[in-house]
Amino acid sequence: MDKVVGSAAEAVSDLAPGSVIGVGGFGIVHAFPVHLIGAVRELGLTDLVIVTNSLGTDSGHPLSLVQQGQVRKLIAAFSARPGSAIGPADAISPVPLEVELVPQGLLAERMRAAGAGLGPFFSPVAADTVLAEGKERRVFGGRDYILEQPLPLDFGLIYAHAADQAGNLVFRGASQNFGPSVAKAARVVIAEVDEIVEIGTLRPDDVGLPGIFVDRIVVSPARREAVWRKPRVDEQQPREYLGRRGRSGRQIAERVAALLPEGSYVNLGVGLPTMVSDFLDGRDVTLHAENGLLGYGTRLAPPDADIDVFNAASEPVTLRQGASTFDTVEAFEMARGGRLDAVILGAYQVGADGTFANWTTPTLGGGAIGGAMDLVVRPGKLIIAMWHCERSGQPKVVRQCAYPPTGTGCVNLIVTDLAVMERDERGLVLRECSPGFSPADIQQLTDAPLTVELWADMTDSSLSAIADWRRTLARGRVLPRPVP
Amino acid sequence: MDKVVGSAAEAVSDLAPGSVIGVGGFGIVHAFPVHLIGAVRELGLTDLVIVTNSLGTDSGHPLSLVQQGQVRKLIAAFSARPGSAIGPADAISPVPLEVELVPQGLLAERMRAAGAGLGPFFSPVAADTVLAEGKERRVFGGRDYILEQPLPLDFGLIYAHAADQAGNLVFRGASQNFGPSVAKAARVVIAEVDEIVEIGTLRPDDVGLPGIFVDRIVVSPARREAVWRKPRVDEQQPREYLGRRGRSGRQIAERVAALLPEGSYVNLGVGLPTMVSDFLDGRDVTLHAENGLLGYGTRLAPPDADIDVFNAASEPVTLRQGASTFDTVEAFEMARGGRLDAVILGAYQVGADGTFANWTTPTLGGGAIGGAMDLVVRPGKLIIAMWHCERSGQPKVVRQCAYPPTGTGCVNLIVTDLAVMERDERGLVLRECSPGFSPADIQQLTDAPLTVELWADMTDSSLSAIADWRRTLARGRVLPRPVP
Repeated sequence: MDKVVGSAAEAVSDLAPGSVIGVGGFGIVHAFPVHLIGAVRELGLTDLVIVTNSLGTDSGHPLSLVQQGQVRKLIAAFSARPGSAIGPADAISPVPLEVELVPQGLLAERMRAAGAGLGPFFSPVAADTVLAEGKERRVFGGRDYILEQPLPLDFGLIYAHAADQAGNLVFRGASQNFGPSVAKAARVVIAEVDEIVEIGTLRPDDVGLPGIFVDRIVVSPARREAVWRKPRVDEQQPREYLGRRGRSGRQIAERVAALLPEGSYVNLGVGLPTMVSDFLDGRDVTLHAENGLLGYGTRLAPPDADIDVFNAASEPVTLRQGASTFDTVEAFEMARGGRLDAVILGAYQVGADGTFANWTTPTLGGGAIGGAMDLVVRPGKLIIAMWHCERSGQPKVVRQCAYPPTGTGCVNLIVTDLAVMERDERGLVLRECSPGFSPADIQQLTDAPLTVELWADMTDSSLSAIADWRRTLARGRVLPRPVP
Repeated sequence: MDKVVGSAAEAVSDLAPGSVIGVGGFGIVHAFPVHLIGAVRELGLTDLVIVTNSLGTDSGHPLSLVQQGQVRKLIAAFSARPGSAIGPADAISPVPLEVELVPQGLLAERMRAAGAGLGPFFSPVAADTVLAEGKERRVFGGRDYILEQPLPLDFGLIYAHAADQAGNLVFRGASQNFGPSVAKAARVVIAEVDEIVEIGTLRPDDVGLPGIFVDRIVVSPARREAVWRKPRVDEQQPREYLGRRGRSGRQIAERVAALLPEGSYVNLGVGLPTMVSDFLDGRDVTLHAENGLLGYGTRLAPPDADIDVFNAASEPVTLRQGASTFDTVEAFEMARGGRLDAVILGAYQVGADGTFANWTTPTLGGGAIGGAMDLVVRPGKLIIAMWHCERSGQPKVVRQCAYPPTGTGCVNLIVTDLAVMERDERGLVLRECSPGFSPADIQQLTDAPLTVELWADMTDSSLSAIADWRRTLARGRVLPRPVP
């Protein structure tokens, strides 16, 4: 058995107009099978259905197929990148483009269900959002579930670090992400690899994806280049409110970091939350990234970075002792299964009832769902880290969330540049004001009514009040229970 | 974070009467967490619900909890072992025991669904058997599916080769089997390991199960002993029919091996099919074992065996170049997902319509489902290898299968000690007679009517007719297709 073929062009030669093609890869630059995508572009096939987590940014990414008008339908977790010069997918396509947005973990799970030979399944993901509209709904154990369809593929194009002739694949770091789920769902699986190793060289226990899932192997004709994009969020300066400066973005992240208890497992969303990892040195907090890392550390300057070790924001990070890597399916098993103690996300708006929005706005167009809707299914405690107001001055903490929600009634804590607010049965409770701001100032800048009950006033010291919060958080894991 | 606890007794001290406990391990002897099970036995807890693939055979296995009357309900793929001195589970329990039989792959998948935070799912497994009775049924793409429930656990007891202090586990060979699915489903996960390695020693890519799924680690106080049981099937001599001898069991296996095409992926069931692996030296046939091996070779004499490298019949085997290991969930993704070219199973009876039975009989009591019902969902070609008649002389190839079926209308080929029979739209077609037997002899010993169309008479040589069969088989993979 020798699955190695001579070139990317040869490997994709039987793709056809209308083919349903899954593409592995993550975020803005990572682990896309760039030469296979290039070969599909050169084939000039049209009417394609492309299934991918995100479009990427370059000619080697699924984006280029959309830009060339080769795609009829896009099934993805991201159809737009907020703040990017590239608009929503349907706006950049020269042909009519249908877009189906699917939460990231659910996207991998739908492919995995097809690959596992299973039928539709009930999922709690996004059951309280517009994405559930028109789908079959049922209640189990008091919780809403939506019937989701398996997502089989004609072809799967994935990247792996190495392969042997039998098609056994080895992944490095966080580069496997969607690779295994795309491969399992596809009738024909083509893997682009950095190198072929002689059969018998791989230890059986080290194989990342067994060769039975892989049909063709192509060696990349060129060495992969690490393209890191500078995180824009770091540059954001403190904003002014009532003539005074609040916390900077980094200070918001630092405040969140201080609230996390020792021994916890925590997921950091993209944006302000990403910076929390810079403030955990020496702390026993294990960070979970949905692209397939557990136990990553601080962010790194690109020259020192490993191309395959990146966080969910596509930034290079260190790996701590005790780190592990896995694929997107397993990353979301951890999250939906209730293994996280806390999830920290950014938001456009948070309502007084704990409903929040962070994936689209009426003006954004498209949507950047990512993994947020999967993460809020069983987030332990859900902490929102964001600026207190829009740049326009519009409050972001509102009586009622006006944007399409990411999750309803699920926010536990909000940390902004001006305040820390906890949600309980009374609504929002002001716990801390940033230096220079009074509770009255905060209320003035907040649409939602706040109950004022500062941690500092509650007990002898704010430290023990925060310890109370941490203890609550440490009990936050909500795992499914057996039926008695 | 240090998850290491001092002893098995300490690790299980908060188990309670009535706890739902998942136990990893496979087959008759392998990879059970024997010291944890022993500690549960010593605790004397009763009213337990035990979820396990099989009962094992020794005091370190789930069997001992049943024998001591500690179990109220058993959820398992095997509640009896055919030919064993140990009777059905409910017959050996001194207290009333409820038994829920679940096909092996489905059992792992139901635990995995709980661990992944998903709801019920539609499964094609056993949809045409008595196990589907009373369950919600629905048709998708012309195929019957049954709604299956997630199976969450209070506690998970598993075995792994090594762990670090953060709970990251490393498995060896086929020893992971149910470990990951049990761990994902359980609220509290306790792993028994051979050794603790210092945190930072494990490469992140080598972790088999990330520590987020593991709560407590115990080091085995004693070295594991390899206990191999001699396969009884090898001793079976040729049987006599009409005063003449048919093929021996090994010769049946040899005949099956010769029919497999090069480049194929094949699963071998327990019993006669297991011996097929002894006749594939130098052949490009990749063997799949549902306990988590792809690419194993011949069976080995125990002194040369690796304790963690065993086939689905719990026999030691070699690993070929290009082998890989994985867990039960992934093993059945391969099978149900349609990646196998052929599945070879034993049977008690096969009907003319391709319905067969191999998991229980009216006299056996209990049931040994194993993975057969999962394997026949998309078996590629399903080949039955069995004796032509019962020892009593009763034909096993019958007009209509009288025992509870394992699968309906799914058998493609039957290889017995007397004949090779193919099933097509006409019913059963006799393709080969064993030396010394005529088509009339075979029909006399067969309840089902046979169309006689011998491969040897069809073309210039029987070899090319067999090549035709092989080519059909090589097209046998039936993967799910995208909806157009």
